[in-house]
Amino acid sequence: MSKRFGLSFISYHKTIIVLGQVSADDGGVLDQIIDSLTSIAKPVGDRPLNIETNNISLRLGEVQESDKKEDDIKRKSRVLILGAGRVCQPAAELLSSIGSTSACHWSKTCLDDDFEEQNNVHVIVGSLYLQDAEATIEDIPNTTAVQLDVMDHANLYKYISEVEVVISLLPASCHVIVANACVELKKHLVTASYVDDSMSTLDAKAKSAGITILGEMGLDPGIDHMMAMKMIDQAHIRKGKVRSFTSYCGGLPSPAAANNPLAYKFSWSPAGAIRAGRNPAIYRSNGETVHIAGENLYDSAVKLRIPELPAFALECLPNRNSLVYGELYGIAHEALTVFRGTLRYEGFGEIMGALARIGYFSTEPHPLLKDGKKPTFRRFLLELLGTKGGHMDVDATLRGEKDIAERIVSRGYCKDQGTAVNTAKTIIFLGLHEENEVPSSCQSAFDVSCLRMEERLAYSSTEQDMVLLHHEVEVDFPDDQVTEKHRATLLEFGRMQNGKTTTAMALTVGIPAAIGALLLLRNKIKTRGVLRPIEPEVYLPALDIIQAYGFKLMEKVE
Amino acid sequence: MSKRFGLSFISYHKTIIVLGQVSADDGGVLDQIIDSLTSIAKPVGDRPLNIETNNISLRLGEVQESDKKEDDIKRKSRVLILGAGRVCQPAAELLSSIGSTSACHWSKTCLDDDFEEQNNVHVIVGSLYLQDAEATIEDIPNTTAVQLDVMDHANLYKYISEVEVVISLLPASCHVIVANACVELKKHLVTASYVDDSMSTLDAKAKSAGITILGEMGLDPGIDHMMAMKMIDQAHIRKGKVRSFTSYCGGLPSPAAANNPLAYKFSWSPAGAIRAGRNPAIYRSNGETVHIAGENLYDSAVKLRIPELPAFALECLPNRNSLVYGELYGIAHEALTVFRGTLRYEGFGEIMGALARIGYFSTEPHPLLKDGKKPTFRRFLLELLGTKGGHMDVDATLRGEKDIAERIVSRGYCKDQGTAVNTAKTIIFLGLHEENEVPSSCQSAFDVSCLRMEERLAYSSTEQDMVLLHHEVEVDFPDDQVTEKHRATLLEFGRMQNGKTTTAMALTVGIPAAIGALLLLRNKIKTRGVLRPIEPEVYLPALDIIQAYGFKLMEKVE
Repeated sequence: MSKRFGLSFISYHKTIIVLGQVSADDGGVLDQIIDSLTSIAKPVGDRPLNIETNNISLRLGEVQESDKKEDDIKRKSRVLILGAGRVCQPAAELLSSIGSTSACHWSKTCLDDDFEEQNNVHVIVGSLYLQDAEATIEDIPNTTAVQLDVMDHANLYKYISEVEVVISLLPASCHVIVANACVELKKHLVTASYVDDSMSTLDAKAKSAGITILGEMGLDPGIDHMMAMKMIDQAHIRKGKVRSFTSYCGGLPSPAAANNPLAYKFSWSPAGAIRAGRNPAIYRSNGETVHIAGENLYDSAVKLRIPELPAFALECLPNRNSLVYGELYGIAHEALTVFRGTLRYEGFGEIMGALARIGYFSTEPHPLLKDGKKPTFRRFLLELLGTKGGHMDVDATLRGEKDIAERIVSRGYCKDQGTAVNTAKTIIFLGLHEENEVPSSCQSAFDVSCLRMEERLAYSSTEQDMVLLHHEVEVDFPDDQVTEKHRATLLEFGRMQNGKTTTAMALTVGIPAAIGALLLLRNKIKTRGVLRPIEPEVYLPALDIIQAYGFKLMEKVE
Repeated sequence: MSKRFGLSFISYHKTIIVLGQVSADDGGVLDQIIDSLTSIAKPVGDRPLNIETNNISLRLGEVQESDKKEDDIKRKSRVLILGAGRVCQPAAELLSSIGSTSACHWSKTCLDDDFEEQNNVHVIVGSLYLQDAEATIEDIPNTTAVQLDVMDHANLYKYISEVEVVISLLPASCHVIVANACVELKKHLVTASYVDDSMSTLDAKAKSAGITILGEMGLDPGIDHMMAMKMIDQAHIRKGKVRSFTSYCGGLPSPAAANNPLAYKFSWSPAGAIRAGRNPAIYRSNGETVHIAGENLYDSAVKLRIPELPAFALECLPNRNSLVYGELYGIAHEALTVFRGTLRYEGFGEIMGALARIGYFSTEPHPLLKDGKKPTFRRFLLELLGTKGGHMDVDATLRGEKDIAERIVSRGYCKDQGTAVNTAKTIIFLGLHEENEVPSSCQSAFDVSCLRMEERLAYSSTEQDMVLLHHEVEVDFPDDQVTEKHRATLLEFGRMQNGKTTTAMALTVGIPAAIGALLLLRNKIKTRGVLRPIEPEVYLPALDIIQAYGFKLMEKVE
């Protein structure tokens, strides 16, 4: 039972994308991959898909461990990844393992290619700091680390000119510099960031340069588009009208790692996440447009159970402007409900709402933190809870959870006793009641909260994060009274291998970006200009590779 | 960073229990183990523990991979495990790895012993069917598989006489036969089953034979006792009174594996679990004794959030007679609340309650299933839903979730529309509405339900189960106004290694049983007669080894 099977995935261009190697012991996984790949090789039931499908054939055979010295004969494709953060590593691993016979971190891959054109991919990782790039590619074959400042025009052009495709994982503001260079040097570009106006305006230039700028190729935006558009396009092909589109996405601790009153952890700076919780939102619900002001966002959290996964105690917060997705997905004129939400575990919104009302997210410089004053966290808490200096008798009683909760209620920061208790538990868990000094780096209540959250809500080395993405689409058909309900769910956990953790977030952003590069390298994406993965040309092969890679995608029709 | 450290645990008897080997890469785990072991070597803060503590010292050193041929010099201890089910394997692995330098499945262990007495353990696994025993010990060193029928007196006595300790993992009814043999042959016995009257009456005999019969050494009963008694004894030593004891335990699918409307799966026959859901219950709540009739048990489910783990959407059902635990734990006269509950995910109770009312759990032979009649599952459903034969027009409409839910409500099987929908979803998920024939092996509605649940609610090869155990104890102290709240939580997931899955349930039952045997082998348990792990002599070292083994135990005081 220890034979290994190489599983290959052959495009109609007769290049091979080797997807992974599973041991025959993993019968379930193997079956799943085969089913997944077989399903895309077959027409979907009796529904003739008008969408150009990729002509994919399957080949499953035992791999010979010996005949593997063809490395030199192969033509190497080259990909430049800019930015050596956590997302880079799974992307570099996936790409560098293509066409390689050697073991690599994400999975042992094997070469299974009886076509004349043999390819593998060399990955150059460029980072402002060489050691970051070096650390990222450690133990990954077919990679090179280089120091690269995108503001250094000559160096940027030098490296871009050496490759066929560039992936930019840099901050969004840097993409335009890279995109302009790609246009000039006629190289494809992939990013996991939103396609903003500065990027959109490059469409014509990219087209005339004959290149593709593929944006929004991560998780959200990215896989969310792919899963949504697959359902929506299928509905439209069958002459259906999408009456409701609801979508939920969250990067969360796994339930076991959600071991604090907020049931949340931060894998990077909390500042962005806290700010995101104060964004105004707009969505359509049963034909009515609903506006949520930023200051009410946390309070608008609604309990949510995902039918396929009822064990997760979730809630959702409206996620900014859902209406633009109605336009983007071509359902604005037919859908009565268009809603996109952010997933959190139940209770998060009400606690964060209470903390906001107490004043913990105010970004104004606070008088108590001015001029190098360093009050204790406890002094600062008492200040926010309205116990201005000197009332030592009152302060002394404000020690325990119960006292703090009562004060929160009596000051009107929340009405519900349960919420007040959970908020008090959070304050205590974060150490916002402790007697040590607030460091002078904190200028505002927001700074104080961010500091404590960063300290106390970090993942331990053995804890897993989780990504959960869930779409629900309701479709009406002209000839039928029944409304079909289509659901698609992605659930991924951080992976630990050889003592190294790759977060679910890094995986679900990095893998799609790498797949984008791969599809461009293999000329499977032919549209030029600025593109999102809302086109079947992108999402069909991308979703197939994502599943073959091992992401758990569940699809259900009721 | 690839050096290995052997971590050893030296008792005051100067025998060594080698607990595991962790690589230095697992810094967090290593620290945790060291902290855990160090804490038991130190007195607990300023609280003088009257309980006899084990004098344990720590030794951490680099292991030499070479000098390991002392296997023959060692005196081998021998343990007989009766019953080769899933629980046996982790028990056999733990025991056989003791004192061994070789790698074994659960963890690489190493010998780190500079004392004169060197021990390792040879495990004999006896099963009615030799191939079961052989399959269980496959790849485990220091083990022997034997065919053994406990009714075969000569053979049973032969094997028991060859060992120092016997672990019986047989059905509870077999324990007495084994126990009598152990008394006669003066060998210690460990079981993971309840100590019933037939076992209790052996107390005097066991004492005069100089042996210990250690029962209830699994999860529930087992680890639950240990965690409870540690908190209760600590409270009593500090002159506290336990005012409230609540305890929750569940063997559940991990949240990711709870992918069905019932949010439940069965790792063995559903019959026992369904029957357990119909047991009457009794508990004390705020000084009042509460009785729950068996037929109301499912409906008495109450939503539950564990403060440490708020992401799990749980509920609990009262678990039989909680009052006997008040007696057992010595808190019957002081605790106003004594409650033990079974954990399920939210919604389980109401759906099972509705299925029960529909009649799906009736064990009476059903007329429709008599005399080799084989109705379809759908025909049987319609019968239960009160659509007696022939009403084809009515039957035809009962196709979808909505129709079934409406019928459930109109027939009075549940009042709540949401519950009816979830019950209908469950009926559909289980295929109880399908057009294929009920096999003739089904005589009752109960048989039909069990069959479908066994088919449709099984774990796939990659899915994990989970064990969650949570105690809450409230303690009043004479000199203090404040009630202390103590909580202890165990969360374990099934483990996958080399393509083999060990369920959390097997681990959390098998490991304590093995630890019981180990403590008897090492003469750390000196009390003779019939014993439960409610004595500090048992639970203190057992909990320490459990944690060092890697079980995640969280303890919290508020």
